[in-house]
Amino acid sequence: MTLETSALLTDFYQLTMLQTYHTEGMEDLAAFELFARRLPPQRGFLIAAGLEQALDYLENLRFAPDELSWLAACGRFSPRFLDFLAEFRFTGTVHALAEGTACFADEPIVRITAPLPQAQLVESRLINLIHYQTLIASKAARCVLAAPDKRLVDFGMRRAHGAEAGLFAARAAYLAGFDGTATVLAGMRFGIPLFGTMAHSLIQAHDREEDAFEHFAAAQPDHVVLLIDTYDTEAAARKLIALAPRLRARGIAIRGVRIDSGDLSEAARRVRAILDRGGLRQATIFVSGDLDETRLQQLLADGAPIDGFGVGTRLDASTDAPILELVYKLQEYAGRPRRKRSQGKATWPGRKQVYRTLAAGGAFAGDYLGLDADSQPGEPLLRPVMIDGRRLSPPEPLTAVRDRVRQQLAALPPALRANRTAPAYPVHIAAELRQLADRLDREPH
Amino acid sequence: MTLETSALLTDFYQLTMLQTYHTEGMEDLAAFELFARRLPPQRGFLIAAGLEQALDYLENLRFAPDELSWLAACGRFSPRFLDFLAEFRFTGTVHALAEGTACFADEPIVRITAPLPQAQLVESRLINLIHYQTLIASKAARCVLAAPDKRLVDFGMRRAHGAEAGLFAARAAYLAGFDGTATVLAGMRFGIPLFGTMAHSLIQAHDREEDAFEHFAAAQPDHVVLLIDTYDTEAAARKLIALAPRLRARGIAIRGVRIDSGDLSEAARRVRAILDRGGLRQATIFVSGDLDETRLQQLLADGAPIDGFGVGTRLDASTDAPILELVYKLQEYAGRPRRKRSQGKATWPGRKQVYRTLAAGGAFAGDYLGLDADSQPGEPLLRPVMIDGRRLSPPEPLTAVRDRVRQQLAALPPALRANRTAPAYPVHIAAELRQLADRLDREPH
Repeated sequence: MTLETSALLTDFYQLTMLQTYHTEGMEDLAAFELFARRLPPQRGFLIAAGLEQALDYLENLRFAPDELSWLAACGRFSPRFLDFLAEFRFTGTVHALAEGTACFADEPIVRITAPLPQAQLVESRLINLIHYQTLIASKAARCVLAAPDKRLVDFGMRRAHGAEAGLFAARAAYLAGFDGTATVLAGMRFGIPLFGTMAHSLIQAHDREEDAFEHFAAAQPDHVVLLIDTYDTEAAARKLIALAPRLRARGIAIRGVRIDSGDLSEAARRVRAILDRGGLRQATIFVSGDLDETRLQQLLADGAPIDGFGVGTRLDASTDAPILELVYKLQEYAGRPRRKRSQGKATWPGRKQVYRTLAAGGAFAGDYLGLDADSQPGEPLLRPVMIDGRRLSPPEPLTAVRDRVRQQLAALPPALRANRTAPAYPVHIAAELRQLADRLDREPH
Repeated sequence: MTLETSALLTDFYQLTMLQTYHTEGMEDLAAFELFARRLPPQRGFLIAAGLEQALDYLENLRFAPDELSWLAACGRFSPRFLDFLAEFRFTGTVHALAEGTACFADEPIVRITAPLPQAQLVESRLINLIHYQTLIASKAARCVLAAPDKRLVDFGMRRAHGAEAGLFAARAAYLAGFDGTATVLAGMRFGIPLFGTMAHSLIQAHDREEDAFEHFAAAQPDHVVLLIDTYDTEAAARKLIALAPRLRARGIAIRGVRIDSGDLSEAARRVRAILDRGGLRQATIFVSGDLDETRLQQLLADGAPIDGFGVGTRLDASTDAPILELVYKLQEYAGRPRRKRSQGKATWPGRKQVYRTLAAGGAFAGDYLGLDADSQPGEPLLRPVMIDGRRLSPPEPLTAVRDRVRQQLAALPPALRANRTAPAYPVHIAAELRQLADRLDREPH
């Protein structure tokens, strides 16, 4: 078993609970919903992402022989229960928002309906999978809104939190509208366009900066983008002007430059002037270094002549809001709606549906959170994606998810589209749902 | 190849640079150092971690046949270069701080000395591996300092950024002094003690809360810790008092309770009183929910009768400081020291060593950052751990790393030991190093 597919990538309490359910024969149908309890103050909306990986996980979930042996050796589980785990498969039903759907607090992103032990066990990894990509897609969408006509590339793998975060950040950013990533494995696994040129070390390893430029150009003649801030950015730009005719004679064009430090706006302006005066009008300027949507907006508002941005650490770790309060809660068991009432953490009970109403022109006009069995105004957004443990359709191409995100972003209220702080988008709790919650609160436990 | 071991888990520019080095025959020895450019304002020290995983990566690094085919198909690399990648192995030397060593800005945590292409290629994943565990060990150490005599358990896998983060957070927290984790796979892979009891869903799935308690106790008779805040915390505590004699008759003791919501200090006090009055003096109180070192300090300063803490999201995503500015910089190539001079990102050139001086009693009295070839006051902390691509010794047991962290924390200056904001710990730049940097700055590039 690999790390990502291990059934033991879960919390220990899932197994102790499962042993209890198994001992008591509690295997009736349970409905759990995964949703954001509230949004971080820095986020007015989320972009749902990670569903494909969650479905992969559910389809392939099983305990490997060495995992079962290890569980047996740890002395906490009965042989009968371990036999049950050996046969464990996920055979449930999944309803979900399509990847790339804009969503808000309280709205289920995924609903699992399955025998209680199955629906329970998957909690930890399911949150883990949906949480991270939704976190990053939501952050990336803000970058896309900040710089809609610029090239945006994910540069963040090195300071993403581990291997999977590095890989999935690339996927989440791409589906949210980024043009590509620097992470090679994301190119191989997901077909995401790859970008990347050189680090400062390539320049430093040469005694003369112009030699580094020339050697790199000769080795990558069709992709000559040169990093010019290792020693003196403007001096390096002038070296390019001197180098360009020599390269041109060999049929090589300088496509662009990258600047990674200093006052990016001022540096871009000065470099643009040098390149333009020196006959390199077509060479683009790409910048990187501690960028996020706020810096992108500032740089563009400032009129900086920048064609593209490498967004790294602040994207892949979503540094301004590094977690979402995603939770996975039991809403129904054995046909009866259930409600957690813990202080500050109460949930809306029952199987629910999200209904989205649209204004003229397709703009989002407000959502209704209602019971699945009732009907509310608007389009229901949760759709079945897995029945009896099997996907209903093959994975959606990322290009289709990108199209959906584009449409969703265009339909957001203007303040959210502008990354401005705004009153929360209206999610109306249906009267029937409030009544159900009130009724459950009056029942004894 | 699994995700974690894939040679393609790197940045695309590593490959374009490698092609340049290969084309130009630049294969002389390079020395790169991995260090924190500066510390986040919320961190006065770091605990180095992740070295074992980094060494695993270096020992096993190779391109798989399907990865090579994919690279060939992407059309950016020459057949000769792909042949070179097919034979690629890491044959270099690694110097490093022992895992669990306290360290500070500018101090190399790892130094790689290898032929330039090898030392270059590993940059992205090496930072990724050392960054995350160092981030989490540093955060976890602050929790340990805040609650030195309490049980501390990592609960954060679900909102860690992906699978590997969930697994490695458990390791990093444990080596920093946590008692264990909820993440089962960390128990299997690293032998870390596992903790965990039940979620609210187990309570909710039962019609009566006391039935849930009794069923759980029957299924885990030796580990009865019960979650009591699903509906009404004090009412649940009173139910336990009623239940205890029935369980006792079956030979089952209630070991403790967990509270996960509300005013934890007040709730713990009230529950403690109920348990004590009801004859459950020996039952411990464990709390969880949005905890970090600041909350731990507050709760304990407040005199809350709490025996242990589950620290989750805020640990595994290090939410107050979700990234460290770890970088990996070329400091020497072909026997010549190198210096990046980019505005705000200049580096200290040459192969360096960290020397730590101690006051009477072993307290840290200040570090010197000097050239490896020179000597400075204090003990040199970077030691060779890999030569010619092979580890010098088997992985250090985590218990030994835990002992080291304990000693390191005890030797920190009092303000750092108290998690107080304090002037930066003194890291003196040796005069010889400053002179070398000045000399390099005067050279043309």
